[in-house]
Amino acid sequence: MAEAATRRRGRSGGGAARRAERTGIKIETAKYIERNIPLFEVLNEEALEIIESNAEGILEEVGVNFVDNPAALERWREAGADVDGERVRIPRGLARKLCETAPSRITQHARNPERTVEIGGNTLVCAPVYGPPFVRDADGGRRYATMADFEKFVKLGYMSKWLHHSGGTVCEPTDIAVNKRHLDMLLAHMTLSDKPFMGSVTEPSRAQDSVEMCEILFGKDFVQENTVMTSLININSPMTFDDVMMGALEVYAQNNQACIVSPFIVGGAMAPVSVAGTLTQVLAEVLAGIAYSQLIRPGAPVIFGAFVTSIDMNSGAPTFGTPEATHILSGAGQLARRMGLPFRSGGGLCGSKLPDAQAAYETAHTHNAALLGGVNFMLHSCGWLEGGLVSSFEKFVMDADQLGVLHHLARGVAVDENAQALDAIREVGPGGHYLGCAHTQANFKEAFWRTELLDYKPFETWADEGERDTQALASNRVEQLLGGYQKPAIDPGVEEALRAYVAEKKASMPDAFV
Amino acid sequence: MAEAATRRRGRSGGGAARRAERTGIKIETAKYIERNIPLFEVLNEEALEIIESNAEGILEEVGVNFVDNPAALERWREAGADVDGERVRIPRGLARKLCETAPSRITQHARNPERTVEIGGNTLVCAPVYGPPFVRDADGGRRYATMADFEKFVKLGYMSKWLHHSGGTVCEPTDIAVNKRHLDMLLAHMTLSDKPFMGSVTEPSRAQDSVEMCEILFGKDFVQENTVMTSLININSPMTFDDVMMGALEVYAQNNQACIVSPFIVGGAMAPVSVAGTLTQVLAEVLAGIAYSQLIRPGAPVIFGAFVTSIDMNSGAPTFGTPEATHILSGAGQLARRMGLPFRSGGGLCGSKLPDAQAAYETAHTHNAALLGGVNFMLHSCGWLEGGLVSSFEKFVMDADQLGVLHHLARGVAVDENAQALDAIREVGPGGHYLGCAHTQANFKEAFWRTELLDYKPFETWADEGERDTQALASNRVEQLLGGYQKPAIDPGVEEALRAYVAEKKASMPDAFV
Repeated sequence: MAEAATRRRGRSGGGAARRAERTGIKIETAKYIERNIPLFEVLNEEALEIIESNAEGILEEVGVNFVDNPAALERWREAGADVDGERVRIPRGLARKLCETAPSRITQHARNPERTVEIGGNTLVCAPVYGPPFVRDADGGRRYATMADFEKFVKLGYMSKWLHHSGGTVCEPTDIAVNKRHLDMLLAHMTLSDKPFMGSVTEPSRAQDSVEMCEILFGKDFVQENTVMTSLININSPMTFDDVMMGALEVYAQNNQACIVSPFIVGGAMAPVSVAGTLTQVLAEVLAGIAYSQLIRPGAPVIFGAFVTSIDMNSGAPTFGTPEATHILSGAGQLARRMGLPFRSGGGLCGSKLPDAQAAYETAHTHNAALLGGVNFMLHSCGWLEGGLVSSFEKFVMDADQLGVLHHLARGVAVDENAQALDAIREVGPGGHYLGCAHTQANFKEAFWRTELLDYKPFETWADEGERDTQALASNRVEQLLGGYQKPAIDPGVEEALRAYVAEKKASMPDAFV
Repeated sequence: MAEAATRRRGRSGGGAARRAERTGIKIETAKYIERNIPLFEVLNEEALEIIESNAEGILEEVGVNFVDNPAALERWREAGADVDGERVRIPRGLARKLCETAPSRITQHARNPERTVEIGGNTLVCAPVYGPPFVRDADGGRRYATMADFEKFVKLGYMSKWLHHSGGTVCEPTDIAVNKRHLDMLLAHMTLSDKPFMGSVTEPSRAQDSVEMCEILFGKDFVQENTVMTSLININSPMTFDDVMMGALEVYAQNNQACIVSPFIVGGAMAPVSVAGTLTQVLAEVLAGIAYSQLIRPGAPVIFGAFVTSIDMNSGAPTFGTPEATHILSGAGQLARRMGLPFRSGGGLCGSKLPDAQAAYETAHTHNAALLGGVNFMLHSCGWLEGGLVSSFEKFVMDADQLGVLHHLARGVAVDENAQALDAIREVGPGGHYLGCAHTQANFKEAFWRTELLDYKPFETWADEGERDTQALASNRVEQLLGGYQKPAIDPGVEEALRAYVAEKKASMPDAFV
């Protein structure tokens, strides 16, 4: 199977690189982050043990619901759970035992092998915003998203150096029928980018379509033996697993494709109004969900997910980038690592309506929490606005630039002889300056992270250029990137087969908008 | 001496509280932060030992310059250093040995004892922006700062719940003569606020004036036996100690007042273009500066300072909130703790010209780095804009609100029975919601940090209210706070004496503008 990938690389990645060289457009993607820094772990051993014990107790005593899914109930019964109607009570230790067959690290292949990512251990893979029905940009304001918007986001993601993953529903293309849009979305990820992507989860049949399109792109055997999609399975917190999400999970697990099993919690509404209580529920839910994935196929790749925010108890609105969310993220990461599972959380989350200071404060808090909290897969790492209702073009490039900060932070501090710079200190001496010294000349290009967006110009230059704020700089960068976009090369036969598959599927059913 | 403070509390703090109650204006200041969370420490033991050994080697081999200060050279000679012209070479181990008499924790008294702060150990004290010659607000744009601006910032600081300290030069009152403005600035801090403050460092005589004004405010004996000012002594990096700053340090140390001994470094220009090299220089400079303070008066309170940023190697402009600055802050904190000294770094630093997304990204990075890096005294924690050239009214209240995030993060996670919330999880069960449950009702008021500024309203409400961004919300809050400001009560005799001192001093010399 590796050969298939290598062959594709020869055909597509290499061709794209050569073409990029000819046209002067530089397409560069940083390798996924490998942390060389310590983690921030907010819970001590005692707290972890209390939460783990309480989660097991909740599973045994209260249990979880598997809704409209008789086959799931039967699987649980066979595994030794106590099934009463749709309620599944799981004896202490059973769920954790079942989770043991899940791998601790996932290699998600991209069609360009240079873009393949590792999810687990010390890695952090950054994927863009997922799910908003609206888009916003400075020119057009806020409006329903279309397929044309979707394609622009995929192109921006492909052009973003610090973004490793093309994501999934980067916005909802509301101009395409609900039962068909997954086909257009997948086609866009597969043909407009060569980064890894996510599959559809809105119906089991759409998950099946996702697998079949991957079989065209990667080859049937390759898909069965390798992970080529990482898809998002939300749990209906508290403690409820619906048949649509579980149906999609079943398809993916059967086909050896990765799922993120992720409680989606607004603390205070869908979980207790305390960090320890919320973590207890998160762990109980993830234990049940991941155990179920292993009942479908032992060894199926899964990710411990935790999308948790808190509620503004005045307005009932969800809030983002708050200190309590950071505590929960950090604690959930510890729980995931103790289970030996890859961890998903975080993102560039914010509640603001605009890509303004509020958005940036909240996003930076979440970015930092994700890096230091040991997240392995960060969905929503760029472009998220207004509590996830809006995908913002400007915020996409702003956040994507910020992901470079995380890359550099993760490198840690070198202390080799060059880094010690003793000769430079001797050479310059008291009262001198380092700008011209040999050590500076040899090292300055790589020493510091450099923004491709933010402004450090002298005040007068900045004023002459129109006193642009970050949003204005970002509008300009969106335009530049889209103007310079070139589609990565793809085998014309593969692209033709994908388009034929999509056309045939769409023709086979009437439009549905639910 | 404690009695004097208590007596003042009865007269002023209590009176202010009663008056506030009558008028409905709530003046609340959170206690300084006490961390109940682990720190982020980027350097391992080997790296720390290398840097410490290299710093000692640099002091011995290269040395530091004490400029225009024969008395300092004489003190160093007597202490055992090798003095050659203005160059002081300090034998390995000597500076560190001298630093041992410095206390590990400082109690800085405020005239209202409820505002007294502890600097050292697990504490974090937040002080506002220091030094900008310009101010900016949304209405008036960027302009030279005046004394009227200065007073507004002191009032805003007094009204800011999460800000513990009134600071020093919150902006440069450029409409007052350079040789007199320190008097007006101190008078403003002493009378318009009751939080702790900083003294003048721009001339030894102005440091002396600061001490004398404190003697009026606190009583002469109280000042000699307690710390009532924490003042900022910058080192001219690389490795140069000028006579003005050292003269001010001498005054403060002799009077038992605290100094922050702080390299001011733009990495790549004033220190090597590497983190380990910069930390080596920082440590060498701080060792020499703090050792010198202990030569003046063993036991004088001092703080290990490190104001380090990096340079944009394209434009030569300083940059803020960068990953390299975070590494340096974290490493410097480790070095300070190994010396048993309080640590100053961080702030709400940014390079942006406007209080926009760039400003907020950069500020949030610096705030988080300071909290997790073990900073004990955070200067510039609110209001800093444009690389420190501008004090921004809007950013002041934006950042001050964000300091609440740090307070809540620092609390850590409770795991007592109430926090575990098992009864709530049992009560709600699968598919329910927590909004009305007993645990939520009992805990929601204190559970989550609440902004007093940011927007979480529904989109439609926000749109109806004029689609305000964070800056617009902040302008509104500045106006509200200043409109509600009431001067804290002060003994009329003390205020009169302070005003008389200032008037007399100002009358005694002609205006000077250098």
